[in-house]
Amino acid sequence: MKLWQKDNTDIAQRVEAFTVGRDRDFDLLLAACDVKGSLAHTEMLCKAGLLTPAEKEQVHHELHALLEEIAAGRFRIEDYVEDVHSQVELMLTRKIGDAGKKIHSGRSRNDQVAVDLKLFLKQSIQELSQAVKGLFDKLIALSEKHKTKLLPGYTHLQIAMPSSFGLWFGAYAESLVDDLELLAAAYAVTDKNPLGSGAGYGSSFPLDRTLTTSLLGFAALHHNAVYAQMSRGKTEKFVATGIAAVAATLARLSMDVCLFLSQNFGFISFPAALTTGSSIMPHKKNPDIFELVRGKCNRLQSAPNELALLLTNLPSGYHRELQLTKEIIFPALETLQDCIGILDFALPQIEVQEHILADKKYQYLFTVEAVNDLVHNGVPFREAYQVVGNAVEAGSFSYDHFDITRHTHEGSMGNLCNEAITGAMERVMKRFA
Amino acid sequence: MKLWQKDNTDIAQRVEAFTVGRDRDFDLLLAACDVKGSLAHTEMLCKAGLLTPAEKEQVHHELHALLEEIAAGRFRIEDYVEDVHSQVELMLTRKIGDAGKKIHSGRSRNDQVAVDLKLFLKQSIQELSQAVKGLFDKLIALSEKHKTKLLPGYTHLQIAMPSSFGLWFGAYAESLVDDLELLAAAYAVTDKNPLGSGAGYGSSFPLDRTLTTSLLGFAALHHNAVYAQMSRGKTEKFVATGIAAVAATLARLSMDVCLFLSQNFGFISFPAALTTGSSIMPHKKNPDIFELVRGKCNRLQSAPNELALLLTNLPSGYHRELQLTKEIIFPALETLQDCIGILDFALPQIEVQEHILADKKYQYLFTVEAVNDLVHNGVPFREAYQVVGNAVEAGSFSYDHFDITRHTHEGSMGNLCNEAITGAMERVMKRFA
Amino acid sequence: MKLWQKDNTDIAQRVEAFTVGRDRDFDLLLAACDVKGSLAHTEMLCKAGLLTPAEKEQVHHELHALLEEIAAGRFRIEDYVEDVHSQVELMLTRKIGDAGKKIHSGRSRNDQVAVDLKLFLKQSIQELSQAVKGLFDKLIALSEKHKTKLLPGYTHLQIAMPSSFGLWFGAYAESLVDDLELLAAAYAVTDKNPLGSGAGYGSSFPLDRTLTTSLLGFAALHHNAVYAQMSRGKTEKFVATGIAAVAATLARLSMDVCLFLSQNFGFISFPAALTTGSSIMPHKKNPDIFELVRGKCNRLQSAPNELALLLTNLPSGYHRELQLTKEIIFPALETLQDCIGILDFALPQIEVQEHILADKKYQYLFTVEAVNDLVHNGVPFREAYQVVGNAVEAGSFSYDHFDITRHTHEGSMGNLCNEAITGAMERVMKRFA
Amino acid sequence: MKLWQKDNTDIAQRVEAFTVGRDRDFDLLLAACDVKGSLAHTEMLCKAGLLTPAEKEQVHHELHALLEEIAAGRFRIEDYVEDVHSQVELMLTRKIGDAGKKIHSGRSRNDQVAVDLKLFLKQSIQELSQAVKGLFDKLIALSEKHKTKLLPGYTHLQIAMPSSFGLWFGAYAESLVDDLELLAAAYAVTDKNPLGSGAGYGSSFPLDRTLTTSLLGFAALHHNAVYAQMSRGKTEKFVATGIAAVAATLARLSMDVCLFLSQNFGFISFPAALTTGSSIMPHKKNPDIFELVRGKCNRLQSAPNELALLLTNLPSGYHRELQLTKEIIFPALETLQDCIGILDFALPQIEVQEHILADKKYQYLFTVEAVNDLVHNGVPFREAYQVVGNAVEAGSFSYDHFDITRHTHEGSMGNLCNEAITGAMERVMKRFA
Repeated sequence: MKLWQKDNTDIAQRVEAFTVGRDRDFDLLLAACDVKGSLAHTEMLCKAGLLTPAEKEQVHHELHALLEEIAAGRFRIEDYVEDVHSQVELMLTRKIGDAGKKIHSGRSRNDQVAVDLKLFLKQSIQELSQAVKGLFDKLIALSEKHKTKLLPGYTHLQIAMPSSFGLWFGAYAESLVDDLELLAAAYAVTDKNPLGSGAGYGSSFPLDRTLTTSLLGFAALHHNAVYAQMSRGKTEKFVATGIAAVAATLARLSMDVCLFLSQNFGFISFPAALTTGSSIMPHKKNPDIFELVRGKCNRLQSAPNELALLLTNLPSGYHRELQLTKEIIFPALETLQDCIGILDFALPQIEVQEHILADKKYQYLFTVEAVNDLVHNGVPFREAYQVVGNAVEAGSFSYDHFDITRHTHEGSMGNLCNEAITGAMERVMKRFA
Repeated sequence: MKLWQKDNTDIAQRVEAFTVGRDRDFDLLLAACDVKGSLAHTEMLCKAGLLTPAEKEQVHHELHALLEEIAAGRFRIEDYVEDVHSQVELMLTRKIGDAGKKIHSGRSRNDQVAVDLKLFLKQSIQELSQAVKGLFDKLIALSEKHKTKLLPGYTHLQIAMPSSFGLWFGAYAESLVDDLELLAAAYAVTDKNPLGSGAGYGSSFPLDRTLTTSLLGFAALHHNAVYAQMSRGKTEKFVATGIAAVAATLARLSMDVCLFLSQNFGFISFPAALTTGSSIMPHKKNPDIFELVRGKCNRLQSAPNELALLLTNLPSGYHRELQLTKEIIFPALETLQDCIGILDFALPQIEVQEHILADKKYQYLFTVEAVNDLVHNGVPFREAYQVVGNAVEAGSFSYDHFDITRHTHEGSMGNLCNEAITGAMERVMKRFA
Repeated sequence: MKLWQKDNTDIAQRVEAFTVGRDRDFDLLLAACDVKGSLAHTEMLCKAGLLTPAEKEQVHHELHALLEEIAAGRFRIEDYVEDVHSQVELMLTRKIGDAGKKIHSGRSRNDQVAVDLKLFLKQSIQELSQAVKGLFDKLIALSEKHKTKLLPGYTHLQIAMPSSFGLWFGAYAESLVDDLELLAAAYAVTDKNPLGSGAGYGSSFPLDRTLTTSLLGFAALHHNAVYAQMSRGKTEKFVATGIAAVAATLARLSMDVCLFLSQNFGFISFPAALTTGSSIMPHKKNPDIFELVRGKCNRLQSAPNELALLLTNLPSGYHRELQLTKEIIFPALETLQDCIGILDFALPQIEVQEHILADKKYQYLFTVEAVNDLVHNGVPFREAYQVVGNAVEAGSFSYDHFDITRHTHEGSMGNLCNEAITGAMERVMKRFA
Repeated sequence: MKLWQKDNTDIAQRVEAFTVGRDRDFDLLLAACDVKGSLAHTEMLCKAGLLTPAEKEQVHHELHALLEEIAAGRFRIEDYVEDVHSQVELMLTRKIGDAGKKIHSGRSRNDQVAVDLKLFLKQSIQELSQAVKGLFDKLIALSEKHKTKLLPGYTHLQIAMPSSFGLWFGAYAESLVDDLELLAAAYAVTDKNPLGSGAGYGSSFPLDRTLTTSLLGFAALHHNAVYAQMSRGKTEKFVATGIAAVAATLARLSMDVCLFLSQNFGFISFPAALTTGSSIMPHKKNPDIFELVRGKCNRLQSAPNELALLLTNLPSGYHRELQLTKEIIFPALETLQDCIGILDFALPQIEVQEHILADKKYQYLFTVEAVNDLVHNGVPFREAYQVVGNAVEAGSFSYDHFDITRHTHEGSMGNLCNEAITGAMERVMKRFA
């Protein structure tokens, strides 16, 4: 049932099945935001004289009751009600009649969807940033815990120079700091109030959009009514961009984990319960968790492009397919939270191999150290390079006195700067307040 | 010729042709940044006692001379020199011998490329933000100039509600403000110093990375050496994301322009010199400029995905294909600047049609006004809606007293908030300082 | 419960929740294919002497019973059973004990998933091609029905030359013919048997893969066992490519429909039941169906890229995230079928406007006709062009004797070639046999 | 200079610089195709009585002379001439005056571009298919040459089962067969004649499109004139799809090569001339060639999406940005040819390690063999699995009598089916004839 519907035939049912699609499921997630939007809108309508104080009280009483229903998990969208906005209005008019209808004054459904999405996405990003911060803390703790354990460093997948688990864990922690820059940009755009833009062209009602901005806790207005509507889809694309940034870091970390778990590397292991067996190879300990984090996060990287394809070349003004952004962005948020959750749980159980570099295939890691020793003793760099190169060619190269404390500069294995990195993380986290 | 090359056969030439590819062309753009990086690095080497003051002076003298060559457009990468870094070092050693070789101490080529890219991209984003601001100003000026001229507002491409050119131009101006949020996030990531991270695993040289950060004018360090290297490719992807955001706004504006120029809309026109004729249809005035802006900007939206495909599932550590990011991001920056440039030139020449809404097909734009008038007079919204709907069905609807000043709320056609939008733009512009 | 599981702790449940994900839901769709695969595999095992005829009979009896359960919609994957393959084996061993276990001989789960997916996708593509053919037939019928009704033809969204509904409908019909070329390529790749490749490295069992290829109705073998496994993910990407091709045509058709429905064009209309009203604008007849087809089909165009991001840079050999391809390709198939279904239903109800070109804004459509008339009379083309151009400039151009039969060449409005296009469609359809 | 231009001001130059862009460079590649199109078109005009035999002879004489110029590399597009089509017409009218102008009768520039692109892409795909076939042959030869050398097979990057270089090379060969299915679908779409569709709406000239189809060697017509034009952009996207398929195979092969070259695998090596040194690590032998093939091919996988973003939601009818498809598809063709070329050169120089499996970390590869041995002796599979699993857990597992001839089924290491794969390749190659 659609409240505005003029007739109701069998054809209508078929059309509705196609047009409503999965929207009612996703709309459930928006219920609390929708009620909050109505609370602010009616508060403002009352100040503007479009609702009497008594009407407003009555409406607010019922809306608060509805919020409790939602919090308790009892809210449902009834069959034949097409979306959350209609359901809320329907429940209201059942209880209080005409005053229930009046809450739609000076507002269109586009308006409601836009503000609901902003509120929902804003809160989701805050929660996501908290989750990222939690994982960051675990990575920093692991970096500190394993800071003296050496690891081969690769370039071109070739053995290159000594590295450490301190550097490796710390790198992914610092990566998350930059990712939150992009997520914070998305957050800033979700923190702008579109309510009052109507169907995208404003209204002749004397709305006070500054008031609803304040009531809803938005940092700013989407001022221009046409742009407020145009921000739909675009906001979701920005959020997808932030999600993709975090996802790229988690995917790359997972790729490293899968590689390091391979018997050909053997740098790390996990308790048996975190790996998976094989139906046909009894010795296998497969890193399914990390492969799935990798895969899910690589899929997430496609979300901004998926939204771009949906939005490209649509002229200005609302179009119905904007409804489909929910199908992209809501699962994306959930998937990323799932991936962070499982990493949060699994990563601290990592077992780090000791004495990896004792294996003689890693001896060439130390050629640069040897070159630098010569340079320290006054040999020009290019000549030192030649000397060591010749020793390598001749098979006579060896180096056995490496010590982590030789590396002293900022960000090197002897000086990880984890406190500075944590400081940077705390600064970016403030932008989600 | 590669400085580190151990042999030189015919095969080597074939391999080099493939591996160097178009890199030398793009490297030319990095020349000034490369020299600036070397100035800071050698200043620091000298403070660390790895270069004598006399050597440093000699090196700096030559590097400054080189900067002048570059500024004058006389710098070339010679045949058989594989990149800008080798060319600079070669020119230096030709002039001053051994001291020239020493500038490579405590630094690897990955280090140099990383810092060159950061410096170049940082500056490019600053220039881009200035260009965006310039276009923003033109859009705001057009919004003010045409603020009283009405335009039909569409939803679903159906005639919906009255809009105005003030709203339309202003919407795209405000859109650019949000786009700069994403570009500013990219800027913040370019404003971090990777120099001193070596090949991605740091160095045993007592480098002072805080000093080079300050000398090069970076806001912060990429602390962790492994992450500093990992930021390669990722930085370019962030920049591409900012570019894609601005491009999406320009593409959508251009789509509107092409539609509004169609004889079926006829809302705007341009001087003949800005449109193009047809080889077979003498009456045509084609909006080629705007179609090409639309197309170029839609292509730009694919750049983040292109970079994602390049980077996905590469384990940590440098890989040679990172060289290819230049082929994606450098032309993208140039293309976006071109598109902004042509819009900057063409948009102010727009001719806006007056009295568009006098055409009787637009009468239904005013149904919401009529509904609202009834609501103002105390009719409940849903009933007012029914009354007007019935008049539309019966063909008896008309409304002829619309006046822009009826819309008074923030962001409506009678209250565009262009000053507030400009204020928001100025705030985001400060982040590129 | 996993059949191969060595221990079972609380941690295992958490890990399982993450790793199994939505896989059990998607696996239900594979049930019949899985049983068919087991029927062929056991038939072959029996021929190879690895199963006695009695054992085979017993197994086949139960598998056929299972097929009936599946057909009747009664098949379920029990809680704690991780996938369809384990469920089928479990049901079998419950009934017949040891012989049930033997069906896994010479086969791995990767093997089973690979063959199940091929069988399922092959059948899905066949059904899809039938649906496409059905829509094609409707488009051809509409082309014939409306072949004499004129329509403005646009280039650059500018009024260009006369066109017809015959051409317009026929164009989208012919577009589907080419789309099926790509879908047929995907079909050819699904029509190859991977069964017998084990976990991707073959087996020491004396399997007869030619026999299972024949029993399962595949046109050919994926011969190489490593490639058979590598085709996983790649097959789904090919299918997604075919889906994207059809989707692009439907999206573009829908864009045209939305534009032509706009009051500024007004070329077509639909019965009220196929359009949607507005909560605030009572006169609106929104083409939600076509906007959603456009949006859903534009999303579908991202599926090949999503799969590319999932697969890129995975070394050869199975990886767990290959499981996620089902989450991409199964809904994509369903969405495209939905879109075809609604178009199949809605398009024939289209109402086509007559006498569109009588509106004087369309007079310039005929400039090329006028030029050609002059050329027919011996005026060189460039001069004729000048004459007509001058008349247009002077406002004196008019042309009122246009007749569809003037266009006689193949594919012009007077000679639509719909029979030839139908012939081409029938030829490409044969490739899905 | 544009032939149809009505005025020429300074503004026009600026506009032209933007609109022409890089098009003149790409157009050079189309010159021969353009002349061939004009030869066929004028032959047909003559048959239709629109050109006298004498005029046609004169035109053909000059066009053949032009073809020789082009073949000799002497053809240029003059400054101020905007494209190849104008240049050809200009050269013709310089030589023969009015008859030169007449060749434009019954044809528009869109028509010319469309047919030029089809001819060029058709030929390019043929050449590409030949190059792919060449690489395929090398892979099959390598598979045969190294068929008895064992390699560990991985799943989840975990050591899984014995594999062989015969299987590994053969897998990539067979992969190319399937890739050519998609390329053949693209070829079929390039092999259709759009000439005669005019600007997309046909013409009142009595064109004989069946004749030009035959003269130009196309297999079929794009019948419908609207669709012929709509195939622009779409054809390029199909070609990009075929390119992406081949690229995905080359990228994955290169990823394997880079991994197998890593000291942690050490399965293969290349002569020093095919690897690259490091500026700071003298022992490195970096696989830059394969990393760049991987990167270039991963970029190529983004081309279909880039084209989708360019084309999405453009209503039917020509739009100027279609010009930009050349910038995407021409370099993509060249890049893929480059990558095939370097692999063709480098791969046969591969040095394959012998006795890899003697390393004791690979002993668990043989667990499945041991399980199968038990099954052969009558132990039910699940029990055999348990026995071997227990031996692995207890550290007592060993297996030393593996022999490649134990694997006998189609596509296993003892029975590579390279002849059958070659047969499949030859069958698909016939579709490019």
